[in-house]
Amino acid sequence: MDSHSPSSRGGPDRLARLAAERVVIEDVWPEIDGGRHPVKRVVGDVLEVWADIFCDGHEGLAASVCYREARGRKWREAPMESVDNDRWRGSFTVDRNTRYVYTIEAWRDRFATWREDFLKKREAGQDLVLELVEGRELVRDAASRAPRAFGVMVEKLDSAADNAQLEALLLGAGLLERMRHDGPRSNATRYRHELEVIVDRPRARFSAWYEMFPRSAANDANRHGTFDDVIARLPYVRELGFDVLYLPPIHPIGATHRKGRNNALEAAPDDPGSPWAIGSAEGGHTAIHPQLGTPDDFRRLVAAAAEHGIEIALDFAIQCSRDHPWIKEHPEWFDWRPDGTIKYAENPPKKYEDIVNVHFYRDALPSLWLALRDVVRFWIDQGVRIFRVDNPHTKPVPFWEWLIPEIQDRDPGVIFLAEAFTRPKMMRKLAKAGFTQSYTYFTWRNTKAELTEYLTELTQDAPKEYMRPNFFVNTPDINPPLLQTGGRAAFQTRAALAATLSSAWGIYSGFELCESAPIPGREEYIDSEKYQLKVRDFDAPGNIRDFIARLNRARNENPALHGLTNLRFHPAHDDHILFYGKTTADGSNTVWIAVNLDPHHAHEADIELPLYTLGLDDHASVEVEDLLEDHRFRWHTKWQRLRLDPAVNPCAIWRVRRST
Amino acid sequence: MDSHSPSSRGGPDRLARLAAERVVIEDVWPEIDGGRHPVKRVVGDVLEVWADIFCDGHEGLAASVCYREARGRKWREAPMESVDNDRWRGSFTVDRNTRYVYTIEAWRDRFATWREDFLKKREAGQDLVLELVEGRELVRDAASRAPRAFGVMVEKLDSAADNAQLEALLLGAGLLERMRHDGPRSNATRYRHELEVIVDRPRARFSAWYEMFPRSAANDANRHGTFDDVIARLPYVRELGFDVLYLPPIHPIGATHRKGRNNALEAAPDDPGSPWAIGSAEGGHTAIHPQLGTPDDFRRLVAAAAEHGIEIALDFAIQCSRDHPWIKEHPEWFDWRPDGTIKYAENPPKKYEDIVNVHFYRDALPSLWLALRDVVRFWIDQGVRIFRVDNPHTKPVPFWEWLIPEIQDRDPGVIFLAEAFTRPKMMRKLAKAGFTQSYTYFTWRNTKAELTEYLTELTQDAPKEYMRPNFFVNTPDINPPLLQTGGRAAFQTRAALAATLSSAWGIYSGFELCESAPIPGREEYIDSEKYQLKVRDFDAPGNIRDFIARLNRARNENPALHGLTNLRFHPAHDDHILFYGKTTADGSNTVWIAVNLDPHHAHEADIELPLYTLGLDDHASVEVEDLLEDHRFRWHTKWQRLRLDPAVNPCAIWRVRRST
Repeated sequence: MDSHSPSSRGGPDRLARLAAERVVIEDVWPEIDGGRHPVKRVVGDVLEVWADIFCDGHEGLAASVCYREARGRKWREAPMESVDNDRWRGSFTVDRNTRYVYTIEAWRDRFATWREDFLKKREAGQDLVLELVEGRELVRDAASRAPRAFGVMVEKLDSAADNAQLEALLLGAGLLERMRHDGPRSNATRYRHELEVIVDRPRARFSAWYEMFPRSAANDANRHGTFDDVIARLPYVRELGFDVLYLPPIHPIGATHRKGRNNALEAAPDDPGSPWAIGSAEGGHTAIHPQLGTPDDFRRLVAAAAEHGIEIALDFAIQCSRDHPWIKEHPEWFDWRPDGTIKYAENPPKKYEDIVNVHFYRDALPSLWLALRDVVRFWIDQGVRIFRVDNPHTKPVPFWEWLIPEIQDRDPGVIFLAEAFTRPKMMRKLAKAGFTQSYTYFTWRNTKAELTEYLTELTQDAPKEYMRPNFFVNTPDINPPLLQTGGRAAFQTRAALAATLSSAWGIYSGFELCESAPIPGREEYIDSEKYQLKVRDFDAPGNIRDFIARLNRARNENPALHGLTNLRFHPAHDDHILFYGKTTADGSNTVWIAVNLDPHHAHEADIELPLYTLGLDDHASVEVEDLLEDHRFRWHTKWQRLRLDPAVNPCAIWRVRRST
Repeated sequence: MDSHSPSSRGGPDRLARLAAERVVIEDVWPEIDGGRHPVKRVVGDVLEVWADIFCDGHEGLAASVCYREARGRKWREAPMESVDNDRWRGSFTVDRNTRYVYTIEAWRDRFATWREDFLKKREAGQDLVLELVEGRELVRDAASRAPRAFGVMVEKLDSAADNAQLEALLLGAGLLERMRHDGPRSNATRYRHELEVIVDRPRARFSAWYEMFPRSAANDANRHGTFDDVIARLPYVRELGFDVLYLPPIHPIGATHRKGRNNALEAAPDDPGSPWAIGSAEGGHTAIHPQLGTPDDFRRLVAAAAEHGIEIALDFAIQCSRDHPWIKEHPEWFDWRPDGTIKYAENPPKKYEDIVNVHFYRDALPSLWLALRDVVRFWIDQGVRIFRVDNPHTKPVPFWEWLIPEIQDRDPGVIFLAEAFTRPKMMRKLAKAGFTQSYTYFTWRNTKAELTEYLTELTQDAPKEYMRPNFFVNTPDINPPLLQTGGRAAFQTRAALAATLSSAWGIYSGFELCESAPIPGREEYIDSEKYQLKVRDFDAPGNIRDFIARLNRARNENPALHGLTNLRFHPAHDDHILFYGKTTADGSNTVWIAVNLDPHHAHEADIELPLYTLGLDDHASVEVEDLLEDHRFRWHTKWQRLRLDPAVNPCAIWRVRRST
């Protein structure tokens, strides 16, 4: 039970505690679940803070946003201003990659009130001799507390030749400002909660991910890929424009109950097994699968990637194969059955006999928690700062809420991507608990209505404060029906949507080649790379490598596309055509996007250009640069007609400027 | 700063604290401002509590609403049930006039999970020998903690002849229920906040108020009324159907700067002054104006009113006349000017020289707060349990937040009505701070759009949990323009709206006589009773006494009209006709109301009867009883046409029943 509970009443304490809060400060935004969870920003953002602030009586108020770095002690202040109807706003820039704490202080501004009343009475011709004395008293009181700020002014007031001079001194604009900043704060009230904002590095919001299995990097069915093979693929990844290279688990793979090709219960002798079945006699979560290379090889990969402007992201998957060393070293972390066998994973009646799960409580608390933290720290020490977390929703939420600040307090640049595909409230809770980015329902949102509703939720509603989507168009587990049936145009439009609707997006290797052969009737790939090496023809006809490279170039070159909450949908009078745009806060960069969501047929629509977002009227002209086709033209007036043909141009991305 | 702040991190404590909350409990409703303020109910209500409850993994959950009287220690529990999409609901009846505390506990129900998994595996034909042993272990574990609940069952399980018998015992429905209630609660998580509900007596929600100046009770311009004259008027008030009789201040009235008739700056020698200029040499807030009578007379009035089923409500107005004894006794409660004079009330450039305000801080804290509490307690000791508080928004909010529980903890039946007409957020804050009822903007809401929007806010949005409107149709300060120009029909419709839209309503004496003579161009009455005695002809032609009596009878006889949040608007296809209804929670009583908002012209509208609220289809029939006209009829089908003529029937109130 917390100290705010209305039931914790008790005599004089209660009176004093309540009396200390004369100015009402409430409905603070952003504030998640009463301050229970932090909001998120990236370095350089301006954090706007809003609140209802009011008080009894007619006296004027003043208010500040108070903020400090969470690990520091020094508070800074940013003034708030009254907006309308008792709503106030203030802001400050978060300029360091760390956590900040913020709250609000508000007080009755007696000098400003005195001044305003004085002016009204003067206007009404009233006698003001006593008011002048009262005004001087307020400044004297301020000087008694802050002699350096007000001592000189008091001397001037005391030596005023007459009331006219006294009045002139007291009404000087400089004094009003100085009294507001440095004068006494009457009934200063501090908001009850200190709120937190996680300030990440910019890549937390803006990044383009490429997922590949390093064991396939040799592109040879008979040779297991190595980290050196991955290094050789880095120019390819960079050419596509991606800046994060995400590798599924690189640890030794268990042999017991190893899965064969296409998830077969029995593996053939040369089947490599699923990399998510972590651990063998060769080691567990801090070991490297010997066929991939050595720790030195891995560190070389990290360094080589950095030279290409690419970061390596690792998979953090907590489950174990039945050969994981922890099972012997820490039997207390696992569940055992009455016959002495280990309890494997199951979702009755389904059994996952190649996997065992740790539990997080009883004898595993806190030893397992600390061990897992140390696993993450181990890879940070190898140069990794991005972790894609496998199935976080099957691990206790408190574990993440503990782990992520535990890591970021030491290494604030570390990014955690939550791979949760589960019910909406758990998705949001993981983001609140601290995940930097989140997988989403994007692959199952296809129609204009679905996309508009879902993106409005992600970019305009409460989740925008704490949840950052990463729009993967496919994953080794998700081969979406639309891609199975939509052909090349579907791959283009889904990539364009992901890359422009969300500020973070990603593809799993093969997408650029329009791979989509499924296990019939399912969303799974046939011959899934999860269970075997894969060989691909990266120059196969019909690939969309150039299209993806252009998408990523458009993203990199247009700051508007680095934002998430700046997404706005605009009218297109056809249900297959989605039209939207993004503009930077300073208005210097605007991008509009139109996508034909039907990969099979051309569609036309009347669209209304949002000229107002450029400060233009409906009849103005704009200069347009087509970022996919490299040509320029001009639009006159806001009413335009648009045709998008999946065989030719399934989508368009325009950079727009006012005509000069 | 509170203990929940995300910034208060610290090593092992933080891990243990977070780990204790494995089950997520969030988005609890009702919860006002993160538990900062209580919600309100009346005795006999069922309080529904909702929350999002979920956890990692696939195990089943169970949850309870935990509640206790705020002053007690014994927790009780009511089970919650899953509704949909991780949303849970539970409820309990608040059966005492006191404050309750409630919160939520949720846990992983391992036995229910075991049972469900067992059934799925049995369905799939899997071997279940180990599962039976595991199930028995769960019961044994329960028995080790609660031998009385599970000892016998363990004996049965241990002596089971074979696995079939063991299985039958473990799957018995009774065991599932008992394990849920009395078994161990795995990862039991308590919601972080303890929330409070104020449970008032029913009159807090359902009451009809009549305001009169006791000094006019003689109805003689030359004789000051007395409490005995008020006693003589009680049958009149009762005949109108009111159950609260509210008296403006009954204390001695100051002489210095006393206001004359029509707010004149100079009073004539025989002018009685405003009763809100409280205090003279004859006493202050605990004294009685001598011309009204003695303390004994007052107590006789309270007793006589009670015999008529009427409660006396007093005015609690904190300001003082310049002759109030406190000014000498407690100069530290007042503001003084540099020349030694007392600072009178002002709203620059306006001056209110007959009134001085106490301040609540500096030397007045806490002595003034305690003195004011004792004023309220004094009148409680005289038998008063309802206080209409004058201008609470000009006194510090913390004072009310302290005072009201301070009073109600000792006298839970005390009702405070906030007479605040100010900006919306302060109106709401006073209700959150504890006021039992609130004056509203009702007198300024006249059109169908205004009434629909405002009543939807009051009865369906967040304020419904903590703010109870009292719809006064007029006050000594508010003579609404519509009444000045609308004639008798306007008085009828405004009374009908107030009495049926809100569960609490009131009139100020003279309304029943359609009094409305204003100071020209203003919302003030001419010859206001605030400054002089008033004589009225209570039998004047055109009065609406019978109409008001019928309204109050309809209210008293129909429990649907005792509710506030059960208000629903229904379609009437004319902008002048407002059609709405209320039904009791059990469906046993339904009232529909139609009002012609235009007092000058008849209007007709197609209306759609909400037959669905009675569980009927669109073509059904209902029995209708006109509660204003005393006749009965039957409606067939939901489509009806209605005509309301202000000269004949400006409104209608129907009790509706299913045809039998």
